[in-house]
Amino acid sequence: MTGFSVTTSGVAMTILITAGPTREPIDPVRYLSNRSSGKMGYALADVAAGHDNRVILVSGPTDINVPDNVDFIPVETAEEMYLAVEKYINKADVAIFAAAVADYTPETVVDQKIKKSDDTLSLKLVRTKDILGSAREVFGFDGVLVGFAAETENVLQNARKKLLKKQCDFVVANDVSRSDIGFSSDENEVTLVFKDHNEALSKADKHEIAHGIIHKASDLKNLKLNN
Amino acid sequence: MTGFSVTTSGVAMTILITAGPTREPIDPVRYLSNRSSGKMGYALADVAAGHDNRVILVSGPTDINVPDNVDFIPVETAEEMYLAVEKYINKADVAIFAAAVADYTPETVVDQKIKKSDDTLSLKLVRTKDILGSAREVFGFDGVLVGFAAETENVLQNARKKLLKKQCDFVVANDVSRSDIGFSSDENEVTLVFKDHNEALSKADKHEIAHGIIHKASDLKNLKLNN
Repeated sequence: MTGFSVTTSGVAMTILITAGPTREPIDPVRYLSNRSSGKMGYALADVAAGHDNRVILVSGPTDINVPDNVDFIPVETAEEMYLAVEKYINKADVAIFAAAVADYTPETVVDQKIKKSDDTLSLKLVRTKDILGSAREVFGFDGVLVGFAAETENVLQNARKKLLKKQCDFVVANDVSRSDIGFSSDENEVTLVFKDHNEALSKADKHEIAHGIIHKASDLKNLKLNN
Repeated sequence: MTGFSVTTSGVAMTILITAGPTREPIDPVRYLSNRSSGKMGYALADVAAGHDNRVILVSGPTDINVPDNVDFIPVETAEEMYLAVEKYINKADVAIFAAAVADYTPETVVDQKIKKSDDTLSLKLVRTKDILGSAREVFGFDGVLVGFAAETENVLQNARKKLLKKQCDFVVANDVSRSDIGFSSDENEVTLVFKDHNEALSKADKHEIAHGIIHKASDLKNLKLNN
């Protein structure tokens, strides 16, 4: 999967990438989040920027250094990520949503730290806006759209459902129940799920997986251009 | 606050330090946590280890390198931190609880990733075990006990309440509503709250603040030894 040039058959592209988790504050101290080191998304940004593409990286909080030659848009909450994507997506030829966005966020954020009092606490959560699901239908994006599906069971089936519902070109399916890959690991093993077939990328460094994903997205972009 | 030797008047001590946040899993992907970079706790461990003390660092997930010459006990949840402290505290002369332990944890942890379905979700939380509050009464610890109080209002009052309730020797009070210090900052400005007086440590690098705290705890230890 290495050694090819992403832009051999096309011109440099603008690629929007989301990465990392989001943090949904409960009060000034407590928050709700998702496991995500951001490594996969940052590897995608690094690989994409290395091929003269313009890269816009919208990222939740991570401890990773921002790759060179990337327009970096730091965000914290799912709502902030939604607004950043809304603002930038139609500048992009390709949008890859690798972030682990919180699906639910506390209904109310308390201004002051909640004092411990009761033995139990019921936290009312409401759905966040669906960023990937808004790409086609709300933002009107018509470029190459790539989603990620982090699943613990029925991985490929759930990924294909997501592909169809969100009108993606492909979905990167990730079995996060496996302890040898995923989250904070430097390696990953994924399956690219298309409408009518799957393509497995065998276990490799996240940078190599990123090459595979960027290569595929680039091919699809050129295909769209030539049609 | 620099230049003194922590152990001038005594022998090297064993110091137990807790640091970082805890993570309370909701399902394999989602979790509840507290804002805490772990920088203050790691600075304490670094300073303490630099003075020939034995340091046991019990830490939740952070991205900080473990200081040299420290016995490192990594944990994830509040329950795991409780068990580690229970195991090691009576080997210590001084215990400093700088971790931001979750007060509440989900009542049940779901094995598989919860699928989005309803527009709202009610998350039932239960209290975690009180680690600081267990030091004297459950673990029978009789060394120097130092707590931290991260507060957003009534900072000193809340810290003094904590001091008395948990039978600490002093509590490090931290106003986390200030954006220039705290959490991910490299600086801090705290007040050491004792039973009958307060001592302010002016704004400084977290390592310098750590010197002040270790120095004070060391003094108290020697005082106890000489009584």
